[in-house]
Amino acid sequence: MSLLLDNQFKELPPDKAIDTKLFLETVSHIPSFFDCLGSNVFSVIKSDINGNIVKIKAVYLKDPAKYVTLQDIVEAEREAHPAEWPKVGATLALMWLKRGLRFIQILLQSLADGERDEENPNLIRVNVTKAYEQALKKYHGWLVQKIFIVALHAAPYKSNFLKALSKGEEVKEEDCLANVRQFLVTYTVTVDAVYDMYSNLNAELDYTV
Amino acid sequence: MSLLLDNQFKELPPDKAIDTKLFLETVSHIPSFFDCLGSNVFSVIKSDINGNIVKIKAVYLKDPAKYVTLQDIVEAEREAHPAEWPKVGATLALMWLKRGLRFIQILLQSLADGERDEENPNLIRVNVTKAYEQALKKYHGWLVQKIFIVALHAAPYKSNFLKALSKGEEVKEEDCLANVRQFLVTYTVTVDAVYDMYSNLNAELDYTV
Ligand SMILES: CCCCCCCCCCCCC/C=C/[C@@H](O)[C@H](CO[C@@H]1O[C@H](CO)[C@H](O)[C@H](OS(=O)(=O)O)[C@H]1O)NC(=O)CCCCCCCCCCC
Ligand SMILES: CCCCCCCCCCCCC/C=C/[C@@H](O)[C@H](CO[C@@H]1O[C@H](CO)[C@H](O)[C@H](OS(=O)(=O)O)[C@H]1O)NC(=O)CCCCCCCCCCC
Repeated sequence: MSLLLDNQFKELPPDKAIDTKLFLETVSHIPSFFDCLGSNVFSVIKSDINGNIVKIKAVYLKDPAKYVTLQDIVEAEREAHPAEWPKVGATLALMWLKRGLRFIQILLQSLADGERDEENPNLIRVNVTKAYEQALKKYHGWLVQKIFIVALHAAPYKSNFLKALSKGEEVKEEDCLANVRQFLVTYTVTVDAVYDMYSNLNAELDYTV
Repeated sequence: MSLLLDNQFKELPPDKAIDTKLFLETVSHIPSFFDCLGSNVFSVIKSDINGNIVKIKAVYLKDPAKYVTLQDIVEAEREAHPAEWPKVGATLALMWLKRGLRFIQILLQSLADGERDEENPNLIRVNVTKAYEQALKKYHGWLVQKIFIVALHAAPYKSNFLKALSKGEEVKEEDCLANVRQFLVTYTVTVDAVYDMYSNLNAELDYTV
């Protein structure tokens, strides 16, 4: 059962600052979404993303008044760990989390845009592959890339995927995609804002795992 | 740096009962061993095994006086959760943990026995594959089996593997293997005892993931 689409991201203020508490509340619904995908292979991804969220939350909770926005955290860590930063703490966790969020964004956008394999209209491999190539591939070494290709076979059918997005109810594809489009508005703005912050603060790394 | 061989398993009493506290102390050194293997791919396995240990420990700590042996835990859970057992709690965690332990046992035994690919004497793929086929393969669906085959490419060279087993020191292959043989004595007895317990209590399952 997915609450993904029920947990809309909030609109950002004009300065695009992201409220840490609201952000954490909203992304905390994402890991359980991987349970609906029907293969235990996804539990690996679920726990990776969940680990990122837990790490950011732990830093936030140390001093909520100091870490009102995500940028407050990243800047404080730059100050506190000049040698290791940005490969440290919540800065590193958010660096990876944003890639998983971007993956989801591109996947949903591609579905909403009707991109599909005409010969296999009920598969989402083209959409998943597009998301992977744009969001993650360059951060993965050849081994993880090969594992992705194998894991792609565990991708759910489009009908099941849309059903999972609709809290397990059978809905018309078009109705579900309308919800996806709605969800993507603030979601995309938020993910873009995290990327912009990393680029502005020069906090992005491109090592591979 | 591995403390694997430094943390010998204790001898078992004549009735082969396994002391929960000692067992947990000894296996707790295993997960960090996966850090020495040189690929982040192994962190997935590390956290799976670590999760098993954490789960068993959590049950044990609820009532150490009641759960003196591993069998005490498994029997108490059979009593407490008749419908779900054995796919529940520490019984399930130990079911999977023992498979990882068996994998390690067969891998080390195969190295100690000098089994090797004559054309690639510094690879351990034949040993890893043997361990996989005997300990894990039947519990994995085709997708995880395929991922194993890809992940096999991340297996370290034999020389690096033996070095990791020797706390990062360069040692003669024969000296390291002598330590491995020594380690395997009580280790094998312990792993066998866990398997025997599962078979005696009819606690084994053969579903695939
Ligand atoms: C017996 C058989 C044995 C075989 C074992 C094989 C195991 C194979 C494992 C394959 C890798 C699984 C994916 C996980 C990849 C992760 O390695 C990366 C980096 O992960 C980051 O690493 C950092 C340090 O460099 C910190 O630890 C971060 O942690 S920190 O919080 O501590 O800072 C952590 O997230 N995350 C990623 O690449 C993110 C992945 C997001 C995925 C998004 C959805 C993809 C959907 C795909 C659908 C098809
Ligand atoms: C972006 C790219 C995305 C790609 C993502 C791909 C991800 C691929 C993931 C592949 C699987 C990794 C291995 C993990 C397998 C695990 O699924 C299994 C069962 O795991 C068990 O499951 C139970 C429920 O059924 C409970 O949750 C147990 O947990 S409980 O404690 O809660 O009860 C849990 O251990 N453990 C296993 O098979 C055990 C594995 C032991 C391995 C031993 C060493 C092997 C060394 C191999 C060397 C080459």
